[in-house]
Amino acid sequence: MRTSYPTPAALRGALVDAGVLRPTSVDGVVHRSAAWEQVVLGIERHAAAQRVDDARPWTFPPVMPRTDFVRTDYLRSFPDLVGSVAVFAGDDAAHRALLADLDAGGDGAGHLTPGEVMLPSSVCQSLYAAVPTDVPDAGWHEECTGWVFRHEPSPDPARMQAFRMYEFVRVGTAEQAVDHRDGWLDRGLVALRALGLTVRPDAANDPFFGRAGRLLAAHQRDAALKYEVLVDITDTGPTAVASTNYHEDHFGHAFGLRLPDGATAHSACFGFGLDRIALALFATHGTDPTTWPDEVRDALQW
Amino acid sequence: MRTSYPTPAALRGALVDAGVLRPTSVDGVVHRSAAWEQVVLGIERHAAAQRVDDARPWTFPPVMPRTDFVRTDYLRSFPDLVGSVAVFAGDDAAHRALLADLDAGGDGAGHLTPGEVMLPSSVCQSLYAAVPTDVPDAGWHEECTGWVFRHEPSPDPARMQAFRMYEFVRVGTAEQAVDHRDGWLDRGLVALRALGLTVRPDAANDPFFGRAGRLLAAHQRDAALKYEVLVDITDTGPTAVASTNYHEDHFGHAFGLRLPDGATAHSACFGFGLDRIALALFATHGTDPTTWPDEVRDALQW
Repeated sequence: MRTSYPTPAALRGALVDAGVLRPTSVDGVVHRSAAWEQVVLGIERHAAAQRVDDARPWTFPPVMPRTDFVRTDYLRSFPDLVGSVAVFAGDDAAHRALLADLDAGGDGAGHLTPGEVMLPSSVCQSLYAAVPTDVPDAGWHEECTGWVFRHEPSPDPARMQAFRMYEFVRVGTAEQAVDHRDGWLDRGLVALRALGLTVRPDAANDPFFGRAGRLLAAHQRDAALKYEVLVDITDTGPTAVASTNYHEDHFGHAFGLRLPDGATAHSACFGFGLDRIALALFATHGTDPTTWPDEVRDALQW
Repeated sequence: MRTSYPTPAALRGALVDAGVLRPTSVDGVVHRSAAWEQVVLGIERHAAAQRVDDARPWTFPPVMPRTDFVRTDYLRSFPDLVGSVAVFAGDDAAHRALLADLDAGGDGAGHLTPGEVMLPSSVCQSLYAAVPTDVPDAGWHEECTGWVFRHEPSPDPARMQAFRMYEFVRVGTAEQAVDHRDGWLDRGLVALRALGLTVRPDAANDPFFGRAGRLLAAHQRDAALKYEVLVDITDTGPTAVASTNYHEDHFGHAFGLRLPDGATAHSACFGFGLDRIALALFATHGTDPTTWPDEVRDALQW
């Protein structure tokens, strides 16, 4: 195991110099090379190979209904991270005003109004409105993957504003949800170690916003609702490459998901951070995937 | 060749009933099944197999810098289609106001302000700020793929608000750009026919907005700048599954791309509409890809 790690800037520089990533003018908005994408596809295959049920993944688009997003309470708890989509709903006169703004060097944003969609902060947010509200005894097993957005601009390559997650979700009783979280934490650690990553689990809390958020974060920790899977890749501390969350009945309540006895359903998810895992693999095994250890390449099904 | 086609609603219903697509509460925001995604991956492989240079695809995230988007002039020409990302930039007091709005049944959108990014309307928009501005004699060959957003809510499965494109882009002289457009139109037709689609090319124009837009659309048609690849899948008229555009020096001018002699570079692109092609394949060959003709499955590299 290594005892020293590069700075985030050095890691980013090495990946950009090798043509693996390409920056844009906005921190955390990054173009991915074909090599990076082949790694992401391999991680998806490796993650799918860990499944223990008959679910198959749904791919969600990078926008979701605003009404569903609001029901998740993310706008309350993490307002600083969310992205909301504004659109132009004007007529020819409004268009002339927009053009005048642009002619004057403006960016036109003031001429737009909130549309029907927001950007998901987490893939499973799009799921709870899509599953039938009558949850059977066996519960629901669901897989979902897609792009999410978090507004936290940073030059750290581990903190992208847009990135992909692959989530394994369970909706059912409290016991089913907790079993899902615990089982997937174990399987996720095994799966990530098979990729040559020196990972460890840790209790964690989400970055709830503001003063009100402190209570929510404390509850999450006290009740041990969230665990992250950590790996060391830079000198600024560990990077979470996966996480598992027991939501209690939060989403069940928000989306009216009911068990056969009428009680509100509970839920839990395990999410592989596909771009974070890709980053960890490049940081650990080098910028040229053709030189990675055979056992890693086998796990990625290359 | 078939002489009658389903309504868009019937086509959508068949795909939803077969579990291929899953609607949300917003028209055009659709969940994709694993079967759909395997088709999209196959189309990507088939498209990549048509390349005639040594470019490799960059994958762009579903957001791009606002400054770059504004430079493309899409906000002027297609304001009704764009998506702009708003974020929360407030303090604890602003958070309290946001919470009060949500408590009162509001959606909080009025408490957000424009952020640093927008949603691309076309994948190649993210490209022109990323390539070096000094264009060599040989020009640039680039490939790019990713999710784009167009605000045109519709229950027609051919008109999704979020969808993927795979574009082959040329930056260089006018002649290089026109050759690229013409060569790719020919190759694209051959490639799509190899998937069993009865496609035909047609001159086209983009849906420029408003009164000012009529002139731009007329120029695009008069100068034969844009061709679409059309296929019949519903009874409401042909569906474009690919298009090729010669941009003249529009992007070269906007992004300061210069040829060795100092002249502004021209550009052209050919874009495969990945989700539209997937839809056309399901509409043409049926909702179960395991039953598709062998030659189609071979082309998709299954």
